[in-house]
Amino acid sequence: MTDHPQPAEELRAAITSQDAEAADLCIEELASADSVRAVLRLSDNDQSQLMTMLPNDHAASLLEELPESEAANLVSHLTADQAADILNEVNSDEQADILSRLSAADAEAILREMEPEEADDARRLMQYAGDVAGGLMISEYLSYVESSCVEDVLSDLRNHAADYARYQVQYAYVTAQDGPLVGVLRLRDLLLSKPGTSVSDLMIRDPESVNLLTPLRDLEQFFDRHPYFGVPVTDANGTLVGVVRQNAVLEASEELASQTLLKLTGILGGEELRTMPVRLRSFRRLSWLSINIVLNIAAASVIAMYQETLEAVIALAVFLPIISDMSGCSGNQAVAVSMRELSLGLVKPSEAFRVLWKEASVGIINGVTLGLLLGVIAFLWKGQIALGIVVATALAANTIIAVCIGGCVPLLLSGLKQDPALASGPILTTITDMCGFLLVLSLATAMLQWLV
Amino acid sequence: MTDHPQPAEELRAAITSQDAEAADLCIEELASADSVRAVLRLSDNDQSQLMTMLPNDHAASLLEELPESEAANLVSHLTADQAADILNEVNSDEQADILSRLSAADAEAILREMEPEEADDARRLMQYAGDVAGGLMISEYLSYVESSCVEDVLSDLRNHAADYARYQVQYAYVTAQDGPLVGVLRLRDLLLSKPGTSVSDLMIRDPESVNLLTPLRDLEQFFDRHPYFGVPVTDANGTLVGVVRQNAVLEASEELASQTLLKLTGILGGEELRTMPVRLRSFRRLSWLSINIVLNIAAASVIAMYQETLEAVIALAVFLPIISDMSGCSGNQAVAVSMRELSLGLVKPSEAFRVLWKEASVGIINGVTLGLLLGVIAFLWKGQIALGIVVATALAANTIIAVCIGGCVPLLLSGLKQDPALASGPILTTITDMCGFLLVLSLATAMLQWLV
Repeated sequence: MTDHPQPAEELRAAITSQDAEAADLCIEELASADSVRAVLRLSDNDQSQLMTMLPNDHAASLLEELPESEAANLVSHLTADQAADILNEVNSDEQADILSRLSAADAEAILREMEPEEADDARRLMQYAGDVAGGLMISEYLSYVESSCVEDVLSDLRNHAADYARYQVQYAYVTAQDGPLVGVLRLRDLLLSKPGTSVSDLMIRDPESVNLLTPLRDLEQFFDRHPYFGVPVTDANGTLVGVVRQNAVLEASEELASQTLLKLTGILGGEELRTMPVRLRSFRRLSWLSINIVLNIAAASVIAMYQETLEAVIALAVFLPIISDMSGCSGNQAVAVSMRELSLGLVKPSEAFRVLWKEASVGIINGVTLGLLLGVIAFLWKGQIALGIVVATALAANTIIAVCIGGCVPLLLSGLKQDPALASGPILTTITDMCGFLLVLSLATAMLQWLV
Repeated sequence: MTDHPQPAEELRAAITSQDAEAADLCIEELASADSVRAVLRLSDNDQSQLMTMLPNDHAASLLEELPESEAANLVSHLTADQAADILNEVNSDEQADILSRLSAADAEAILREMEPEEADDARRLMQYAGDVAGGLMISEYLSYVESSCVEDVLSDLRNHAADYARYQVQYAYVTAQDGPLVGVLRLRDLLLSKPGTSVSDLMIRDPESVNLLTPLRDLEQFFDRHPYFGVPVTDANGTLVGVVRQNAVLEASEELASQTLLKLTGILGGEELRTMPVRLRSFRRLSWLSINIVLNIAAASVIAMYQETLEAVIALAVFLPIISDMSGCSGNQAVAVSMRELSLGLVKPSEAFRVLWKEASVGIINGVTLGLLLGVIAFLWKGQIALGIVVATALAANTIIAVCIGGCVPLLLSGLKQDPALASGPILTTITDMCGFLLVLSLATAMLQWLV
């Protein structure tokens, strides 16, 4: 890899001077992540120019490497004609992903300009969400009718070697004369057989397959159980319609895990890149922050109800944020463990009671430990046993409440078919804040005579 | 899949009655995730019994499916002899991962009982961390000297078909007579060639390779650029020593992403399963919580310094937790975006200034919006313009500070080769709490005459 101190600058210069060759060379020389970074830093206008300057297949590879949202944004700035030329060269699963992110009118305009066969494939895949087999599969696969023999397959492979290079072939599929999938051929078995052997003798019969609506979770589990490179997708009639590659499933899971992190902090749609416009980034973050401020005010209104107690024992104001924050942290640990166990498939939504029990035991140990620690500190600071008791009891009780709620909320949300990443945090924090404030201030009110 | 209401119960019954066949059948019938869940719910003792009851290769598959920490725990409860019999059947990369988690003495005892060849492979891989090529590679691959011809390769494949089934063969590697890697053969090219062709005419020369210490990040980038199923690993002399499969890299990245979530909430080592002992789970969570309580007390001590102001304007106590929590949320959004951009390779640690600038613009918009909102609420509640101004200014300023710090801290930590997942949260929250309290209370002190 050559040293490029400022690849984005170099690329911009090549675009400004309309030097197509230099731009192409610049992209080709960069590692994929570097070229993505450089392209994302260009203005929309420069990006469009770059795409029209590059050979279509190079532009297509670049498009496949960009995050989907950015690829769609880029395509939306091209003419339908230019976009179609490039999308013709993109793999069918990515075609569909990019086109589904455009407005229906834009997508239709591009589809009309694409090669009819490519457009049909893309239209078919666009009907399915990105997290089911129909949306993850590719249409580029090999299939032969069961009456073929090994020699037929080998000569087809030899004659179309160039076309098939793009297919990442590991298996060939065998169909009955009237359509349904009946078997799978492994390339290495072809290697070891006589040319006259019938593929129906060589194939693995009744192959595993999935249907168009099989969800990502089940596909993960499938590849977890079977060390295959791909699984055929069949429609309601058993006809082969596509292949889901293991890579596509692993990549989709990885993308999901990284989006979960963003959703947990309340970024709308789980997607933000700093190359997006400020307005959009601001809006996506604000939409959750403005709900959060309402929840915060609701929790803090508990404090307002106990103003008299607080005025009498102002030291409590120091402990309120400590207790609510510490319980929030303990609860979030339980949320994270539940989210991970859910994603690893180690726990089911129906097992909330088991989780409650498991969390309660950790909650009691940690709650009592932390409560005693903070209670002793409060006592040493003000020399009041009563203050120590209030603080210790409140933190211990609130920690137990927080871990129990934190452990169960993701399971309950997931059982209700809601996204646990999105709502677990706010629900937890609001409850622990309210409970924390209420515990400290009501205990203090009850023990007021020993506190003043 | 048959319906198993309580697979763990069924399994436990089979173990208690020493019915090896029933136990084996029970595991085989379950989907991988279900069998993992069932096994993890058994006591350590039942788990050990199960492993000795199953045929060694079935026990080995089960071991490969368990999370590594649990697999190691299970192996540690077997005799060295039993463990060795099972580990002989496990893939070399998993062997090394499991053995490295045991005490050196336990691992050595097992290695002595293993087949010498398997033990040598495992010893070699154990020298390397799990996130470099040396620790991710497998030793099961095909290699031929360059003087071989296609017929030699095909007859070797035919003669060892059973052994090679475990190799997930996609490529064969070609070495010079004296050792160094000189080429790669694709199976499909073997398919299309005459038996007498020399492999040196057919192979792809000067193949891409990585070395033993190539880090996971670079391997991800490699497979991002090259659509290969594996990459050969060579030592300092250019000799082929192993193969890193694309799957192993994707799985390691996925595992890392899910551990990041746990680390962010401060669970030591990024690993907790509810099947672990309560003592351990408690300790791992407490170690971070006890640091957090110190940070919290430090932040809250700011409140203690302004007790007089607070006593004079008790309404401020209601806004302190709102302002610190809201800024914390805004900052955590920026942390999550930076973590994701780092993991996607879209930003480098040296670009902290660019991130600062990008965050400042979002921070100003969101800070002013939220500040105005809360300021108006404060004014409406108490009818004091001064209270509204204090609250609005403090929240706006603290939001800007929080997003700038939140965006940059992960980059700075990553630049200092520290794990950004572990420390970003606590650093951010402590600073935003302190700044928030300080802003509200110092502003209020300055404007005290209009507030009382």
